[in-house]
Amino acid sequence: MLLASLRAQVLHANREIARRGLAPHTFGNASGIDRSGTEPLVVIKPSGVDYATMTVEDLVVTNLAGTVVEGNLRPSSDLDTHTLLYREFPQIGGIVHTHSEFATSWAQAGRPIPCLGTTHADYFHGPVPVTAPLTAEEVEKAYVRNTGAVIVRRFHMEGLDPIAVPGVLVAGHAPFTWGKTAAEAVEHADVLEYIARMAFRSVLLGAPEAGIPAYVSEHHYQRKHGPQATYGQS
Amino acid sequence: MLLASLRAQVLHANREIARRGLAPHTFGNASGIDRSGTEPLVVIKPSGVDYATMTVEDLVVTNLAGTVVEGNLRPSSDLDTHTLLYREFPQIGGIVHTHSEFATSWAQAGRPIPCLGTTHADYFHGPVPVTAPLTAEEVEKAYVRNTGAVIVRRFHMEGLDPIAVPGVLVAGHAPFTWGKTAAEAVEHADVLEYIARMAFRSVLLGAPEAGIPAYVSEHHYQRKHGPQATYGQS
Amino acid sequence: MLLASLRAQVLHANREIARRGLAPHTFGNASGIDRSGTEPLVVIKPSGVDYATMTVEDLVVTNLAGTVVEGNLRPSSDLDTHTLLYREFPQIGGIVHTHSEFATSWAQAGRPIPCLGTTHADYFHGPVPVTAPLTAEEVEKAYVRNTGAVIVRRFHMEGLDPIAVPGVLVAGHAPFTWGKTAAEAVEHADVLEYIARMAFRSVLLGAPEAGIPAYVSEHHYQRKHGPQATYGQS
Amino acid sequence: MLLASLRAQVLHANREIARRGLAPHTFGNASGIDRSGTEPLVVIKPSGVDYATMTVEDLVVTNLAGTVVEGNLRPSSDLDTHTLLYREFPQIGGIVHTHSEFATSWAQAGRPIPCLGTTHADYFHGPVPVTAPLTAEEVEKAYVRNTGAVIVRRFHMEGLDPIAVPGVLVAGHAPFTWGKTAAEAVEHADVLEYIARMAFRSVLLGAPEAGIPAYVSEHHYQRKHGPQATYGQS
Repeated sequence: MLLASLRAQVLHANREIARRGLAPHTFGNASGIDRSGTEPLVVIKPSGVDYATMTVEDLVVTNLAGTVVEGNLRPSSDLDTHTLLYREFPQIGGIVHTHSEFATSWAQAGRPIPCLGTTHADYFHGPVPVTAPLTAEEVEKAYVRNTGAVIVRRFHMEGLDPIAVPGVLVAGHAPFTWGKTAAEAVEHADVLEYIARMAFRSVLLGAPEAGIPAYVSEHHYQRKHGPQATYGQS
Repeated sequence: MLLASLRAQVLHANREIARRGLAPHTFGNASGIDRSGTEPLVVIKPSGVDYATMTVEDLVVTNLAGTVVEGNLRPSSDLDTHTLLYREFPQIGGIVHTHSEFATSWAQAGRPIPCLGTTHADYFHGPVPVTAPLTAEEVEKAYVRNTGAVIVRRFHMEGLDPIAVPGVLVAGHAPFTWGKTAAEAVEHADVLEYIARMAFRSVLLGAPEAGIPAYVSEHHYQRKHGPQATYGQS
Repeated sequence: MLLASLRAQVLHANREIARRGLAPHTFGNASGIDRSGTEPLVVIKPSGVDYATMTVEDLVVTNLAGTVVEGNLRPSSDLDTHTLLYREFPQIGGIVHTHSEFATSWAQAGRPIPCLGTTHADYFHGPVPVTAPLTAEEVEKAYVRNTGAVIVRRFHMEGLDPIAVPGVLVAGHAPFTWGKTAAEAVEHADVLEYIARMAFRSVLLGAPEAGIPAYVSEHHYQRKHGPQATYGQS
Repeated sequence: MLLASLRAQVLHANREIARRGLAPHTFGNASGIDRSGTEPLVVIKPSGVDYATMTVEDLVVTNLAGTVVEGNLRPSSDLDTHTLLYREFPQIGGIVHTHSEFATSWAQAGRPIPCLGTTHADYFHGPVPVTAPLTAEEVEKAYVRNTGAVIVRRFHMEGLDPIAVPGVLVAGHAPFTWGKTAAEAVEHADVLEYIARMAFRSVLLGAPEAGIPAYVSEHHYQRKHGPQATYGQS
């Protein structure tokens, strides 16, 4: 069996999104990538399988073109979004897709989540962006791949760094998050839901759309992620 | 005892709506129908009995006219709604009625739930419709049966397919959902509550009332339910 | 020890309001009355005692004037509200006071909860009323007793029957509910919280303030409580 | 090991804020102070350590200048806020910082929480204040210490007593609460979250911004905290 360690991580990530309530009704999937070999390999959740009974053997291994390399089950129907993101964002090692309740509510409203506080600033450098809606042609031709394409386009248009902004809302759909590992992608999915919950309430209470001043968000982000990080025991 | 297998399914469905928090205070009921015999038979929850202690023997069997065929307890006070839906929607095999929190909030507001995202589109083909209010005469003459009648009238008026739109909000009351089986009706009740929660937040955040473009909702619905479904392991 | 059976019921009611999440931080109390003797006796929660460790011996017995007849602990600081309600509403046998989250939110907004659906109509005949604010003089002279007095005044002014409307919101404070027994008062506190949650969402979604037509609410109320009740197995 | 008893209290307080759901993702910390010696000593959570595995040995002891006196781990990155509050508010013995969901939503909106009911009045004497935003210079020079400074400035400007108003919202950030002990600070963090939840709903329902009359809030506060307190068994 290929990639035993990565399979274990991806299985854990899939179970975690269920356990944390981010993906009721199997509305979600996690994947990871191993870029160490000559051909990068992706491990992803199979389609429509229950989190509780899923095993490492059920996971599907594909290459970056989406061709199954190992596994008897059909891969997640969102595979082409994952592979496109791995191709375009070479810094990332894990991806999580959920329909978590509040992040999805923002995605459905087609609004980016403004950076309204330091909880947000500790994890996302600036607003959580929202994609443009897919066109009829994009849906018809290659819906899943083009879901990845509208994400990448948004990041390119705004000059965003996927490590500093580890997630996105797909308009009318739901969030994708990522990180250096599948575990980090889960953590970002969970924090995204938390800041989406708080931003919802803050906005209804009249929070300024512009959010906190850039000098505060910059300070918080650098304190946690910059070269002189002062948070934690590293 | 008639219909042992269907009784087990209906008991499970009734317990599930309680376990999933969709029917606090015994505000709910589930039924199933066996159409295989010469006379179709309905199995339904008894009225006002606690989910925790209910047994298969407590369930009530009636015919499509609502006459009790087997059982010592009084059937759910909503029986006439169930039987009318079974008569009018011959494709369905199970019905669930709940007062789940957010779906009921929409029903009380008298508003259909717009299709704001793909979570919705995967299960409901278009908005979740809301009935007209019952007239005084309808309430007085046959309240419960007419609750079914306003549902059917809404579906006929809008030319809706009960398999593609597996649920409805009764204005000023609460949701009914259905499916090919009682288990599927439960699943639809649960998903309906989930999309009602998200639509509530999206609407407060300014989501466009028109919802997502038809080409997206159509694509999602067909991907899951169409002849070339690509979701799951079937 | 006086009133062993009533003590057990009142202990259970106090534990239930904690267990159901209606009274975090000991923000709540339940009492019951025995009207069978020559002098009616009230059993009530002691002040500031933890629900988890409370015993039947900790409960306090008073007469309708609020004089302690049995018990070593100080009675709930809300005692005078309870005794006044028992004096003025001779039909009731139990009272519950909570600061449950959504009912209290309505009380703080000073708004009655309109009857927006049948869940409400099954338990409360018409809107859940809200009292007038207490005047400075009422607060200064006898705050707790006057909390009862503003409740009773609201019921008299609107000609309300405390059995048909088994609860009230005290403006700027929180709900009181009651019933024929302490257990029924708990049930009404729980349902009140549920309808307060739904009404909050319905109102934000634009529900008509007038609520459902009287012919619907009347039908539902009579179906459950009227002489020809069709609900349950009675 | 210094301060064994205070360490146990502070460990318990840190675990409690996690257990009560006030500090997901280690977004929080608690400290306590021993003012009995010649030099007051602060016990505080280490930075970025998981609540579940934290031991009394992991806690860090510092003096009021923030110099570590005992401990191998780096103290919470919020240490300088804690020490400044202990220096400026000599009445307090414990401090808790959380990012609890609703209190943080108010902080992000930059709005004080008005006193809308007696639940609030029982714990906070008047509105829960919100600080001014930090200036760019304050962030750059000494962000964490200046977070304490804007809190103290708000209390001085409004003439607030930190015992009567045991908490604050830092604009664009999150709440700090305190009390005579670390346990009391936890209780205030928990109650603050509860009143923030209710005030959010009340405000959306149109609660008057001015809140309840001063004669009611004064009465409630004195009933619980004044010299003739009538609440509890003291």
